[in-house]
Amino acid sequence: MLLKEMREQVYEANMDLPKHGLVVFTWGNASAFDRDRGLFVIKPSGVSYDKLTPENLVVCDLEGKVVEGTLRPSSDTPTHAILYKTWGDKIGGIVHTHSAAAVAWAQAGRAIPCYGTTQADYFYGEVPCMRGLTKEEIEQAYELNTGKVIIEGFKGKDIVAQPGCLVRNHGPFSWGSDAAEAVYHAVVMEEVAKMARDTELICRSADKPCAEALAPQYLLDKHYMRKHGPNAYYGQK
Amino acid sequence: MLLKEMREQVYEANMDLPKHGLVVFTWGNASAFDRDRGLFVIKPSGVSYDKLTPENLVVCDLEGKVVEGTLRPSSDTPTHAILYKTWGDKIGGIVHTHSAAAVAWAQAGRAIPCYGTTQADYFYGEVPCMRGLTKEEIEQAYELNTGKVIIEGFKGKDIVAQPGCLVRNHGPFSWGSDAAEAVYHAVVMEEVAKMARDTELICRSADKPCAEALAPQYLLDKHYMRKHGPNAYYGQK
Amino acid sequence: MLLKEMREQVYEANMDLPKHGLVVFTWGNASAFDRDRGLFVIKPSGVSYDKLTPENLVVCDLEGKVVEGTLRPSSDTPTHAILYKTWGDKIGGIVHTHSAAAVAWAQAGRAIPCYGTTQADYFYGEVPCMRGLTKEEIEQAYELNTGKVIIEGFKGKDIVAQPGCLVRNHGPFSWGSDAAEAVYHAVVMEEVAKMARDTELICRSADKPCAEALAPQYLLDKHYMRKHGPNAYYGQK
Amino acid sequence: MLLKEMREQVYEANMDLPKHGLVVFTWGNASAFDRDRGLFVIKPSGVSYDKLTPENLVVCDLEGKVVEGTLRPSSDTPTHAILYKTWGDKIGGIVHTHSAAAVAWAQAGRAIPCYGTTQADYFYGEVPCMRGLTKEEIEQAYELNTGKVIIEGFKGKDIVAQPGCLVRNHGPFSWGSDAAEAVYHAVVMEEVAKMARDTELICRSADKPCAEALAPQYLLDKHYMRKHGPNAYYGQK
Repeated sequence: MLLKEMREQVYEANMDLPKHGLVVFTWGNASAFDRDRGLFVIKPSGVSYDKLTPENLVVCDLEGKVVEGTLRPSSDTPTHAILYKTWGDKIGGIVHTHSAAAVAWAQAGRAIPCYGTTQADYFYGEVPCMRGLTKEEIEQAYELNTGKVIIEGFKGKDIVAQPGCLVRNHGPFSWGSDAAEAVYHAVVMEEVAKMARDTELICRSADKPCAEALAPQYLLDKHYMRKHGPNAYYGQK
Repeated sequence: MLLKEMREQVYEANMDLPKHGLVVFTWGNASAFDRDRGLFVIKPSGVSYDKLTPENLVVCDLEGKVVEGTLRPSSDTPTHAILYKTWGDKIGGIVHTHSAAAVAWAQAGRAIPCYGTTQADYFYGEVPCMRGLTKEEIEQAYELNTGKVIIEGFKGKDIVAQPGCLVRNHGPFSWGSDAAEAVYHAVVMEEVAKMARDTELICRSADKPCAEALAPQYLLDKHYMRKHGPNAYYGQK
Repeated sequence: MLLKEMREQVYEANMDLPKHGLVVFTWGNASAFDRDRGLFVIKPSGVSYDKLTPENLVVCDLEGKVVEGTLRPSSDTPTHAILYKTWGDKIGGIVHTHSAAAVAWAQAGRAIPCYGTTQADYFYGEVPCMRGLTKEEIEQAYELNTGKVIIEGFKGKDIVAQPGCLVRNHGPFSWGSDAAEAVYHAVVMEEVAKMARDTELICRSADKPCAEALAPQYLLDKHYMRKHGPNAYYGQK
Repeated sequence: MLLKEMREQVYEANMDLPKHGLVVFTWGNASAFDRDRGLFVIKPSGVSYDKLTPENLVVCDLEGKVVEGTLRPSSDTPTHAILYKTWGDKIGGIVHTHSAAAVAWAQAGRAIPCYGTTQADYFYGEVPCMRGLTKEEIEQAYELNTGKVIIEGFKGKDIVAQPGCLVRNHGPFSWGSDAAEAVYHAVVMEEVAKMARDTELICRSADKPCAEALAPQYLLDKHYMRKHGPNAYYGQK
């Protein structure tokens, strides 16, 4: 059986999604990428989490073709495939969920502004919102084009410093060095989505412009750098 | 004892309602319909979920008369009866709850607009809100007329493509091919009720018209069809 | 030991408050009244729920004096005492909590309007909000005057048909035929507080006047009567 | 091993943070101060709660230098150190979290107004919001200056009567006589943050000025004094 250890990691990552309250039913998926083999492991489509095992996960290549597995892979597989194909030198795990607060921002078609350090610790600025797909993009190759729109939206951005985004009218996608880190970033996105929603309500209740609440650039610099810069001092070495 | 297997399904469906956070106390009920016999199984009225058993469920006919059972059926039984009588060729399960977010939309008297794919995967457009019952309808045969108002509100609509609705000043009703699917759609309605409420708050905080957030028709078409159309490719075959 | 059976009931009622998410720490209390003896059983003050036992509950008379028990009774004891003294022919249990959504209405100084059937099933109309206590009332006999302000606010109202209220800048009080029913009504108040808050947000997002969302009087009549009138048909006989 | 008993207390306090829903992952820390030795015990940085033990906590002096422990202390250690150094005669425990509702107020840059008794029981008035740090303060000694800005913000205030604050664009800090009381105040802040947010929404839905909802000064006096004044009568003696 291919990628035995990675199967365990992807299994754990998928199981963590309902544990963190990010998915109900089967509304989410996690995958991980084996750079050397050019293959990734992903959740099968529509299988409930209590029936998931490391063994029934599906292995796909970068065209999204099944290499090992008897079940159909997640319907979002072409999105994962194109992201690994394009960004596979920088990321090793991807997560997609329909977590409620992040979805609300995606549906509103708004990036999550960076109002504080909770977001700044992981996202170097806003959580960007991608443009909506066109009619043609949706009809022709919906899931593949979802990935292409994400890649287009990150042109000129640092995907490691902004490890996730919102797809308009849809929901959040996140990534990381492995599946576990992609899950971590999915949790961050949901938490900051709640906090930013409430920050704006609290500003508005006092007729205070939300723009005044934005975290200043030097705070972003400090927080991101203390976790991720060359002189990082958060956590254990 | 009649409908032994269906009793188990209806028992499970009722027990899933508090598990999904859709009901407190006894504020909800699930039923299932046996098309061949023209009978349905429903929760007894006001019985707490921890005292429910497959055996104390009540079997009724399409006039809502008790055919088997010593307890009174749910006070909403005439609503279930008329829906099965009218739509019984297309649906096999019905659920009614007072889940908080869906009730808020029902109380506001507004349909839940379709802002994204979470809703589009199960509802081909909005979750409609029925008109309020008149004084006469309420006084004469309240629960039966609740069902009639739902049927009236779905004239010209596809009840399979929009498997649920809000009854004004009251709460959500959902249905499906069996009791389990009706529960599933009740969960969907509560989730999208939360998401849509927050989508509008997030739009308003940025003085953005909510109408701009609506999912375009071609996105609805795609999402609904990939799960339900003849070429559906979500889940396992 | 006095009122042994009632101690069990009051113990269960108090333990149900954190179970229903109505209290954190010690921010709530339940009591029950023995009409024949003119005594009530109440939670001791500031004792955490995991240290509560039927035996360490406190028995008080209608002046709020301790008749049995080594611990101090709840600081809200004079409120309970005056309510039983005045309404003891109609009620047998009282609950006070700081449940978050109901407190928000109390703090806003607004009655919870009746927007739907969830509320109408238990409250025949709004959940009223009492006037704030004056400086003198607070300084002289705060807890006793809290009870007096509630009694004043219910002049001309039916305390059985509206089994609870909000005390301004403070929080919810509810009552019932026994301690368990008072807990039930406390849960109802918290649920409808959430629903009404969201109903108004959803109305406002569409620039719809909240007044249009109010449940019509004939719906209130029907729902209240089907549970509580002489021809009640909800639940089991 | 130093401060054995205090290690147990700080361990319990840290473990209580996720239990009360105040932290996800490692986003929080609790410490306690030994006045006689001039040392404090604090959570190690970035260590998940399920790997925490009393033994792997870190002991620091008032300059924030590690006195005992093999792990790095929390990155917020200089904040704790300066607070103990300055206020150590009055406080014995400190907690910092990113609890969602309190963070929203901090991000909005607003103090939590005192709308009712839940807050008045523990905070003698508002929960103050500190000014944002300047670019220089952030770049030079961020965590130390966070503490200094808190101390500056409490000039002329009674830190025992207002046992916590919000740091702008960041989140809540609380303190108390020991670590457990600091946790208690962190829970209070999160609860009142939710209540005050909703109080303002409910006022606004009725076009009622939020200022009218403020608790009057005599209510603050009464509630604070009945728990904390010389004639306190809440709880057991």
